Amino acid sequence: MNKTNVAIVGLGTVGSGVAKLLLDHGDRTARHAGRTMWLKKAVVRDLNKPRDVELPDGVATDNLADVLDDPDITVVAQLIGGLEPARTIMLQLMEAGKDIVTANKALLAEHGPELFSKARELGRSIAFEAAVAGGIPIVANISQCLSANQITTLEGILNGTSNFIVSQMDRYGSAYDDVVRKAQELGYAEADPTMDVDGTDAAQKLAILAHLAFGATIHWSDIPRTGIDGLDPADLRYSSELGYRIKLVATAHQADDGLELSVAPTLVPLGTPLAEVRDAFNAIRVVGDAVGPVFYHGLGAGQMPTASAVVADLIDTAVGRTKITFQTLAYFTSDHPARTKQRDTDRLAGRYYLRLSVGNHPGALAKIADVLAQHEISISSVIQHENQPDQAGQQQTDPVPLVIMTHEAGEGAARRATEQIEGLSIVQGPVVRLRVKA
Amino acid sequence: MNKTNVAIVGLGTVGSGVAKLLLDHGDRTARHAGRTMWLKKAVVRDLNKPRDVELPDGVATDNLADVLDDPDITVVAQLIGGLEPARTIMLQLMEAGKDIVTANKALLAEHGPELFSKARELGRSIAFEAAVAGGIPIVANISQCLSANQITTLEGILNGTSNFIVSQMDRYGSAYDDVVRKAQELGYAEADPTMDVDGTDAAQKLAILAHLAFGATIHWSDIPRTGIDGLDPADLRYSSELGYRIKLVATAHQADDGLELSVAPTLVPLGTPLAEVRDAFNAIRVVGDAVGPVFYHGLGAGQMPTASAVVADLIDTAVGRTKITFQTLAYFTSDHPARTKQRDTDRLAGRYYLRLSVGNHPGALAKIADVLAQHEISISSVIQHENQPDQAGQQQTDPVPLVIMTHEAGEGAARRATEQIEGLSIVQGPVVRLRVKA
Ligand SMILES: NC(=O)c1ccc[n+]([C@@H]2O[C@H](COP(=O)([O-])OP(=O)(O)OC[C@H]3O[C@@H](n4cnc5c(N)ncnc54)[C@H](OP(=O)(O)O)[C@@H]3O)[C@@H](O)[C@H]2O)c1
Ligand SMILES: NC(=O)c1ccc[n+]([C@@H]2O[C@H](COP(=O)([O-])OP(=O)(O)OC[C@H]3O[C@@H](n4cnc5c(N)ncnc54)[C@H](OP(=O)(O)O)[C@@H]3O)[C@@H](O)[C@H]2O)c1
Repeated sequence: MNKTNVAIVGLGTVGSGVAKLLLDHGDRTARHAGRTMWLKKAVVRDLNKPRDVELPDGVATDNLADVLDDPDITVVAQLIGGLEPARTIMLQLMEAGKDIVTANKALLAEHGPELFSKARELGRSIAFEAAVAGGIPIVANISQCLSANQITTLEGILNGTSNFIVSQMDRYGSAYDDVVRKAQELGYAEADPTMDVDGTDAAQKLAILAHLAFGATIHWSDIPRTGIDGLDPADLRYSSELGYRIKLVATAHQADDGLELSVAPTLVPLGTPLAEVRDAFNAIRVVGDAVGPVFYHGLGAGQMPTASAVVADLIDTAVGRTKITFQTLAYFTSDHPARTKQRDTDRLAGRYYLRLSVGNHPGALAKIADVLAQHEISISSVIQHENQPDQAGQQQTDPVPLVIMTHEAGEGAARRATEQIEGLSIVQGPVVRLRVKA
Repeated sequence: MNKTNVAIVGLGTVGSGVAKLLLDHGDRTARHAGRTMWLKKAVVRDLNKPRDVELPDGVATDNLADVLDDPDITVVAQLIGGLEPARTIMLQLMEAGKDIVTANKALLAEHGPELFSKARELGRSIAFEAAVAGGIPIVANISQCLSANQITTLEGILNGTSNFIVSQMDRYGSAYDDVVRKAQELGYAEADPTMDVDGTDAAQKLAILAHLAFGATIHWSDIPRTGIDGLDPADLRYSSELGYRIKLVATAHQADDGLELSVAPTLVPLGTPLAEVRDAFNAIRVVGDAVGPVFYHGLGAGQMPTASAVVADLIDTAVGRTKITFQTLAYFTSDHPARTKQRDTDRLAGRYYLRLSVGNHPGALAKIADVLAQHEISISSVIQHENQPDQAGQQQTDPVPLVIMTHEAGEGAARRATEQIEGLSIVQGPVVRLRVKA
């Protein structure tokens, strides 16, 4: 039987999972690859650090040259996170003739064009299934399985940490900070979860998917994004009263005059598949003009789901499928013009949820409705509960929350109307404005 | 740009859809294939029959030799249904050096081993994404995307016609026959829907998937199967009262001592993804030991979803990916021993729903519980509504329906207990017995 010698660089969470699959399940991998997938080297920074996997003698090394200079090693799983030294090591590996498999979305979102051009120049390939949505094989599905389609819409829950936090807030009515602490204890959130909860991670993944699905070359930082870090449990409660659940949704939609992109906490109708995505799961709904809607749901992160994607890529690369796909599809090449442009964010259309605090003034709602009307935004429903009498039976005069669901409106108009409402004297504090999925 | 000449044999529903995609979307297909996918010939039986697609001059022919004898045509979509002449034509095409793409699951379920051996012998490939679950790319997902996994469970709704019928019965409380007529009028069911509604079609698809996922070589006719053709609206009502929805579920589960396979109307808990699959949609849940659960949902049939899968396969074949997969994975080859055997059906474990008619005898439930206890089956819940007084206020003495949900029991024990219960004098008519999904 043929043998492909594989190396891993970076033996952290994902790297250890990949090593386990290669070492413990050699038979199965050989059957699915038609060849032995042999783990020859694993490059670590510190040979003495305890690892999550037991390596056979001679496999661990702290010297990258052991991989670079070994012509028998043809495929390398590059599983160091962050931008540097990951970028430099990836370039060195390709210069040394290795094909690359990676899970590093931040690196691709930042340096994709450079790395892919270099790979093409050198006749190498880069596979990156694990970089988006972990165990859900969305990269292969868009690149190959749905290749007969023009994709028109892609929307998903791409960040498991955010989804875990929102699901917990929803289920237990807990405050954001308490849930983040719990998520950290359970290992669902990093010590510094900023990139997960502020929408950066989801935007990076969306930028990659938008490139695959629409040929868009948009930097993730140009995608308008709001995280879940400011979410108030009150909004989860009102949403559920209105028949919705709040999710951090990443959307790409091809409109006639450009691509609409956004990452934002969004009210999703209860009973629809995206609303039912719980805890650390991810999900993606893709609509193609031939296939119609296809929905994928699975674990978006974690050691073994992510390793599953890396090993599938290692096999695809070893057997030669990756090279064909890489040569056929001119992903991330600067010599191909972008096929679509990002649409002006102000023109994104959608429905909105607004929550504001108003004093107990007669006519408050009329004033607010009037501002919305000036921006041609009409109201679809309103929740305003009566103030409860306090314990002494006194009618409360505190400001009451007013929740308004609008009909469809442009993002620009909605933003300007919101600013104007915030300026009204009857309105106290900022207005919460969330998108509502159709 | 390179060009791959393609032919279609059989220009019915799916064939016309494939022709539309190739003719109307040449640019897109070329971009995804890195080459022009050129429809050179379409073989029909009757040149004068009106078609659903307009072909350029010279493309239609009623002479298969125009394809067989043209060395420029390298890939053929074989889209004739049924066993013959589909089988003979497929063999002729491969002898003539063509790689095959097909949607014909009945042909593969019946003659897979012969056709795949011949393809291997001749150095040809057969791609068959469209044969299972139409627009859901489950073949590629199992064969490639999840290749790092041992799949442990696969369960799905694989027949859109059955699902449409059950969904309609559920929603409107309609009788089976009425819904079948409606489904035929809407084009969701064939004039003769037997193979769809009696579980044959789902069993054929399950046999193919069980081969891909578990290396099982099991003839579809050996899979225990019950269709939805005998379903009574009363059981849909009681199920919903109990918190379930009835679906025609195809299941393959790898137990320690063999593979459990079945196709049967099954009570699926409300709120779980399979329960929410409506109308003509299909869905498949795959559990892998590394990736965990992955869920797919999409249109399982219809012209364009199926054509989407065929064209993806045409592209994969044209670029060379299919050949690699075909050579790597020894699907349907007699020289590879089956990796797993089917488990004795009597030992399948599961919970059951039983509905029976009992006369108004005191102690009836006790007698039935006693029979179940003799077979070591315990009861988890019971529904027995009181007889309603009739219009004259007279208490009815008609037999009343009694619904019993059991705890886990073996299929053999459940069957024997059911037979014994049917023999009790207090029980009238047959007992309805349905599986309940955990
Ligand atoms: N974890 C997930 O669920 C998941 C899911 C999808 C994608 N990803 C991506 O996968 C990548 C790896 O993630 P992870 O969770 O495995 O991170 P991790 O646990 O932090 O592992 C990264 C590893 O890289 C090693 N490393 C850093 N610099 C190195 C160098 N110069 N030479 C050799 N090793 C070096 C680190 O070594 P030390 O042990 O010495 O620090 C560490 O073991 C990241 O890009 C991440 O975004 C992760
Ligand atoms: N329809 C779906 O949604 C769907 C989904 C998945 C898989 N499939 C599978 O795809 C295959 C085709 O299905 P379909 O729905 O397209 O069936 P269809 O509409 O009945 O088309 C079959 C075509 O084959 C033609 N044909 C039969 N014998 C022929 C011969 N000797 N030479 C040339 N053409 C011949 C028929 O010609 P005439 O027009 O002259 O009768 C007909 O046009 C079947 O195996 C089916 O199981 C279908």
